[in-house]
Amino acid sequence: MNGNSHEEVSKNGSMDGTASGAPNDTDKWLAARLLQIVGEPSVGLELWDGQRVDTPKAEGRSEVHVRLEDRGALYRLLYRPNRTFGELFTQGRLTVKGDLVSVMERLYRGLARADRQAGVAKRMAERLLTRRARPNTLQGSKENIHSHYDLGNEFYELWLDRDYTQYTCAYYPTPDATLEQAQAAKLELVCRKLRLQPGETVVEAGSGWGGLARYLVRHYGVNVRSYNISREQVAYARERARREGLDDHIEYVEDDYRNATGSYDVFVSVGMLEHVGVDNYRTLGSTIDRCLKEDGRGLIHSIGQDVSRPLNEWIEGYIFPGAYPPTLREMMDIFEPVGLSVADVENLRPHYAQTLRHWRERFEANAARVADMFDDDFVRAWRLYLCGSVAAFTEGQLQLFQVLFRRPDCRTLPVTRDHMRVSLEQDAPD
Amino acid sequence: MNGNSHEEVSKNGSMDGTASGAPNDTDKWLAARLLQIVGEPSVGLELWDGQRVDTPKAEGRSEVHVRLEDRGALYRLLYRPNRTFGELFTQGRLTVKGDLVSVMERLYRGLARADRQAGVAKRMAERLLTRRARPNTLQGSKENIHSHYDLGNEFYELWLDRDYTQYTCAYYPTPDATLEQAQAAKLELVCRKLRLQPGETVVEAGSGWGGLARYLVRHYGVNVRSYNISREQVAYARERARREGLDDHIEYVEDDYRNATGSYDVFVSVGMLEHVGVDNYRTLGSTIDRCLKEDGRGLIHSIGQDVSRPLNEWIEGYIFPGAYPPTLREMMDIFEPVGLSVADVENLRPHYAQTLRHWRERFEANAARVADMFDDDFVRAWRLYLCGSVAAFTEGQLQLFQVLFRRPDCRTLPVTRDHMRVSLEQDAPD
Repeated sequence: MNGNSHEEVSKNGSMDGTASGAPNDTDKWLAARLLQIVGEPSVGLELWDGQRVDTPKAEGRSEVHVRLEDRGALYRLLYRPNRTFGELFTQGRLTVKGDLVSVMERLYRGLARADRQAGVAKRMAERLLTRRARPNTLQGSKENIHSHYDLGNEFYELWLDRDYTQYTCAYYPTPDATLEQAQAAKLELVCRKLRLQPGETVVEAGSGWGGLARYLVRHYGVNVRSYNISREQVAYARERARREGLDDHIEYVEDDYRNATGSYDVFVSVGMLEHVGVDNYRTLGSTIDRCLKEDGRGLIHSIGQDVSRPLNEWIEGYIFPGAYPPTLREMMDIFEPVGLSVADVENLRPHYAQTLRHWRERFEANAARVADMFDDDFVRAWRLYLCGSVAAFTEGQLQLFQVLFRRPDCRTLPVTRDHMRVSLEQDAPD
Repeated sequence: MNGNSHEEVSKNGSMDGTASGAPNDTDKWLAARLLQIVGEPSVGLELWDGQRVDTPKAEGRSEVHVRLEDRGALYRLLYRPNRTFGELFTQGRLTVKGDLVSVMERLYRGLARADRQAGVAKRMAERLLTRRARPNTLQGSKENIHSHYDLGNEFYELWLDRDYTQYTCAYYPTPDATLEQAQAAKLELVCRKLRLQPGETVVEAGSGWGGLARYLVRHYGVNVRSYNISREQVAYARERARREGLDDHIEYVEDDYRNATGSYDVFVSVGMLEHVGVDNYRTLGSTIDRCLKEDGRGLIHSIGQDVSRPLNEWIEGYIFPGAYPPTLREMMDIFEPVGLSVADVENLRPHYAQTLRHWRERFEANAARVADMFDDDFVRAWRLYLCGSVAAFTEGQLQLFQVLFRRPDCRTLPVTRDHMRVSLEQDAPD
């Protein structure tokens, strides 16, 4: 969280072409009201003429504040802050002075406070008022996934790890691990939890760029069939597996996980559940039940949350259409109806904060290039998404659940967790 | 699971005083029907005249069978097998040839098969037909707990571990650990997961005989207030803490956990949740929320199950009134409404099977003494309960969930699990 200055985007006043007159008394009253609504965060507010409106907590902390570049920005924020904060930031009509992660953390702390005070009634209202995530039907999923993952492999390669192109939470055996080390450690952790044996068969739901499947084959000698509906990712994954001589043992299938066929020792899914939608968890459970041998086991790795509420509206609208981070209770809809037994749950929340910090550093180092590939609005939107996500994980708005499960008859998993331990010194077992 | 012969109880025919004539064709048809209903287990059936009725799976396996000592036993079994099997065994009207654990495992496998075939409709019917567990109101809990835990400390001391009198699942770092080693390892595991610091305050719900509180104080230098409604256990726990010079740091309170007061760094409950009842989980959650500091954490250790269904009717009726093993989904009713975050779940199922095997060995070694304290029916009932429980854990009818949770603001827990590892070599940190 270095306080570099690239968050200070566009301070040149109003961006929507309408000149804002100097703030009047109503504007100032509304600004103070806005700060109350969002839980009086320790972040100051600066209006378009440079005037400050602060909460008691933010007094004298002028180094960290949010500036509104025009009157319209204030009105929009009041109308629907969860959505318009991101929109205005993207457009450069809301700028941030100070470290963006730190500002987002302060805002999340304020919102959590407001939430606790408002209690259940507010949460109910929030659920009713928030637009429902776009449905993940077979066709809906295709569109939702295309809009995010088919932005171009080149774009993701700029800031994800070089070895396995993992766009999911890494695992940091020590705080100073590099992103490459931590992503390899995550893959190793998954393999160890599953206690893979050479020659076993694995079905994967959601391949990403194919990194987990490659790791499984290379280090554990298994055979993998992996389902993914992102065309660009599948093409990339196939080509890379071929290049690395692993394609005899991996089949990347461009199809929905719900259409999976065959019978496997192991089911694995890392970072897909966020896109499945709770309405489809029972179908996912049936799919696992259909594809898993009588003594099989599996692992699901997903962003989650402690209390059920919709994903931030701006993220769902602009970054991850159709996405929803489930609670553990909701995840049980996958397992319980088909009698799968939960063997182990690990919450990797602090690891995702660190992963996102690493992604953000690399993203910023390549910001000019991203602006060339897309535009400045895109850069700002992704900057907010990455920094806001760091804050969501450090503040506990989001969790990361790794759930290991098994058939009741599975005898493969050891009775202690000693075999699961991953350190930086140790290598994969091959 | 040694095939010793003490399960062969009372083969002297009818015990209810009514002579049973030789089995007729209806009896034999009903016996075959009974085997079908319970999923055709690989266990033969012997009628009161020595005649065999077998399933295809049990053919030629005469070394393992169930013998009905009179016609009434057959009719009762048909009427309500889950309840009457235990009643008849207790009365000596149903005897078992061969290792009782092995017979119970075969029966559980059969029942699981019958269940899968029957599917959801049967499970619904089962839930509707089974008498609801006795309610755990403040008064109801007192009666339920009294009936089990106040059987006499002397009785439990005959077969529980000597050092900490733990009547909950132990932890076996290696398969050959003794019961004493495994119970100490369990206590150590709980402490390590909670990352206790000297001087911290701990509130415990359900003290048992006070062993965990003593361990916490002795090895981690914390101060404990522990709630328990079993008068005999509280008296024992107080006396033993005094004798061991730990009473300055432990307060055993004879009261319901719902009445807990104060503010603590840590909440811990090992083996109480089974007696709380799902209707009271929200109250338990509020109690934790009320008693836990803003940066606190806690651990709940409980028998559980993968699919929600009532506890075996005989166990609930005769051994554990009011008891119910929750699913993970049901347990979330404790945490989610008050925004507690689940950090870690470990399923210790195989460890409970091993714990029960150790208890059973010691129980059998003291069976004559138990018969003197109570009577032969009591010995048979507890024999079935212990052996049936081994089978329930080996076959996956029951699970053991250890759930570590924290406030979102808790920063005490490390980001990896490396600190949790317990081995036999290592000692407690004092």
